Amino acid sequence: MTQLLKARAGEITPEMLAVAGAENIAPEVVRDRVARGTVVIPKNKNRRLEKVCGIGEGLRVKVNALIGTSSDRDDPALEERKIRAALRAGADAFMDLSTGGDIDGMRRLTLATAGVPVGSVPLYQAAVMAIEQRGSVVAMTAEDIFSVIEKQAAEGMDFMAIHSALNFDVLKRLQETGRINDIVSRGGAFMTGWMLHNQQENPLYEQFDRLLEILREYDVTLSVGDAIRPGCTADSLDAAQLQGLMVAGQLVARARAAGVQVMVEGPGHVPLHHVPATMLLQKRLCQQAPYYILGTLSTDIAPGYDHISAAIGAALAGQSGADFLCYVTPAEHLGLPTEDDVYTGVMAARLAAHAADLARGNRLAWQQSREMGQAARRGDWQRWADLALDPHRLAAALEQQRPEPCPVCGENCLCTTAAAFLAG
Amino acid sequence: MTQLLKARAGEITPEMLAVAGAENIAPEVVRDRVARGTVVIPKNKNRRLEKVCGIGEGLRVKVNALIGTSSDRDDPALEERKIRAALRAGADAFMDLSTGGDIDGMRRLTLATAGVPVGSVPLYQAAVMAIEQRGSVVAMTAEDIFSVIEKQAAEGMDFMAIHSALNFDVLKRLQETGRINDIVSRGGAFMTGWMLHNQQENPLYEQFDRLLEILREYDVTLSVGDAIRPGCTADSLDAAQLQGLMVAGQLVARARAAGVQVMVEGPGHVPLHHVPATMLLQKRLCQQAPYYILGTLSTDIAPGYDHISAAIGAALAGQSGADFLCYVTPAEHLGLPTEDDVYTGVMAARLAAHAADLARGNRLAWQQSREMGQAARRGDWQRWADLALDPHRLAAALEQQRPEPCPVCGENCLCTTAAAFLAG
Repeated sequence: MTQLLKARAGEITPEMLAVAGAENIAPEVVRDRVARGTVVIPKNKNRRLEKVCGIGEGLRVKVNALIGTSSDRDDPALEERKIRAALRAGADAFMDLSTGGDIDGMRRLTLATAGVPVGSVPLYQAAVMAIEQRGSVVAMTAEDIFSVIEKQAAEGMDFMAIHSALNFDVLKRLQETGRINDIVSRGGAFMTGWMLHNQQENPLYEQFDRLLEILREYDVTLSVGDAIRPGCTADSLDAAQLQGLMVAGQLVARARAAGVQVMVEGPGHVPLHHVPATMLLQKRLCQQAPYYILGTLSTDIAPGYDHISAAIGAALAGQSGADFLCYVTPAEHLGLPTEDDVYTGVMAARLAAHAADLARGNRLAWQQSREMGQAARRGDWQRWADLALDPHRLAAALEQQRPEPCPVCGENCLCTTAAAFLAG
Repeated sequence: MTQLLKARAGEITPEMLAVAGAENIAPEVVRDRVARGTVVIPKNKNRRLEKVCGIGEGLRVKVNALIGTSSDRDDPALEERKIRAALRAGADAFMDLSTGGDIDGMRRLTLATAGVPVGSVPLYQAAVMAIEQRGSVVAMTAEDIFSVIEKQAAEGMDFMAIHSALNFDVLKRLQETGRINDIVSRGGAFMTGWMLHNQQENPLYEQFDRLLEILREYDVTLSVGDAIRPGCTADSLDAAQLQGLMVAGQLVARARAAGVQVMVEGPGHVPLHHVPATMLLQKRLCQQAPYYILGTLSTDIAPGYDHISAAIGAALAGQSGADFLCYVTPAEHLGLPTEDDVYTGVMAARLAAHAADLARGNRLAWQQSREMGQAARRGDWQRWADLALDPHRLAAALEQQRPEPCPVCGENCLCTTAAAFLAG
């Protein structure tokens, strides 16, 4: 039984208890939200986690990091270091997007190293195998895709991004709409190319029940892939995107009916004034399913600074309802991220998540903020650093340069006079 | 005559023409907004600028960088390099906040180097001089302050942050309110300490007309200092802050009546859900005066990453009405910024400004975004880099690692098939 089915049956699982403890809310509340599908707890039945991750209604906003090999850079040891860097920075989950070298081996390494939920895009491995074994992606068969999904599920994958919400209706709408950047989702491009070449409907849409059976068996959380997310702000909230979101909403209902935990992936590039409507429509059309956003990037002009562009969008998105933030590193749109890029990307996303948590009124986030302000007032810089987003970095900074006795006035402190008055 | 008085008299000055050209709007529109006070053009009558900077209604959001010596680090050559770094990064204006060494010399160096509007906080120099000449800040006289203001104005300062909106009413409200972090504004702390020690009203409030005479004579734009801005998110939008904002609103009316250009400084630490109300109240209480924000920091927990915390808040603030962003560097709350910190701080603020411009519907911002997406579609990576926030950085990245032929699929491109279909 999946977490969803157990919750519906009234059971409070150890995973629900762990989420309740971490979020400081009642276990019954977690159970009810899992039962309604507004919270998911990605965890394969074959996996043991060091840290469970609840995603959705009323919980702190969570952060996902991406790792994985590619044909350009196939270095599992580097990927392992990236995982450890992301964990040091506080990542709540990972996706292994490997497309190069020993994909199976890399996945096992990720599952063994992470200790937190791990997701994948099985279509990537199926596409790479089709190229190797059949000469091209378009020669890939439905069996190829489903056998990869089955294998990855059996090996413990906790969640999977699957591009089921793409069909010929959506492509037709995309064609009618006209975009500056048509398809920027890699999985979306694979499936679109495959569908057009073969003139066949997307098997992940057409055989959705078959997919659900596999996911239910292992309690893999479905992340409905956003195949046609806008690739620039000017393409945001167009008819094609909405058509895709409507299909995603139907799939959410079917997944829940089948007892499969489900969340929905979203954009992408979204100008700030589109963010609240984008979140609202996802929640409305997808029956309050947790929203997993890939950004959202608030601008298109910031390669080299896209972790900041994304932190801006993600904070507002989180305030407006997004539950799970995929990190964006400074290397986005430029190249492959280094270990440092990964660390920075997680930190920027966690900062955005905290800003969103404050705006959502999360009590734990407010407690942390208040305690930090109180520590600064007392001049307790060690406690101040311990409470911060990145204590490691502050420890180094404090050693180099201790804050002055009064951070405002320095040695000639006027605040003392002021503080005495203000204290009454 | 100030820009404001000339605009009221129906004159379109060369500065208004320059703003109109840079913003691609009609000169008459600029003139009308300057006349109403919703746009300011900081430029001392004794100064020549390479680049004029319009701030306010309907204009692109602008970015200010801070430089200046301190007693801990008195190195004018370093400050000059920081100015040049900020200019390379695209800063629209500077404030010279020097408190160490040869303050006059540093100010002249800043004015000579910058080529864009330069502002100051004259109270800093007056306080340092009082310590040197009279032994303490509390021994400073009103004459000390006004003589510094007069000298700096005569030497060409384009705008000045002056803490006039602080009086005993505001301090009383602050005392009643209770805060975690009472006063984090350095000028605010100086004046509060001075007022309490001397039991005298703030001369910058009490002799406000005298101040306005000096500012009008040289067309120095007044930036009403935010002496009691919240220093942590938990203190945001409290009664003390609102009391200060009401005083600021009265001063705006008096400055305009005297023909002095005026903008208003604002917080500080503001949780995201407070940002729209904070901007609305400033615009409402201060008669739509341009809003110059110091942040706004969306969290308290991110020392080391405060440029990101501020970019998040500033983008939403810009969308909600803020017109001028004071940059925040990664060194905020930690120590003195390096040249690199300055460059990064300006870039993060410019990114926030662009995100805000998109959300405000600025046509130039949308044009830049669309052209960048179109360049990516064509695979014209040189044009793409030229249009970006930081072309310098992208030039280096493009040399190191050229984007693949198709950034989505690499060599085995499926988008070609898809694109042909989508093109009809």
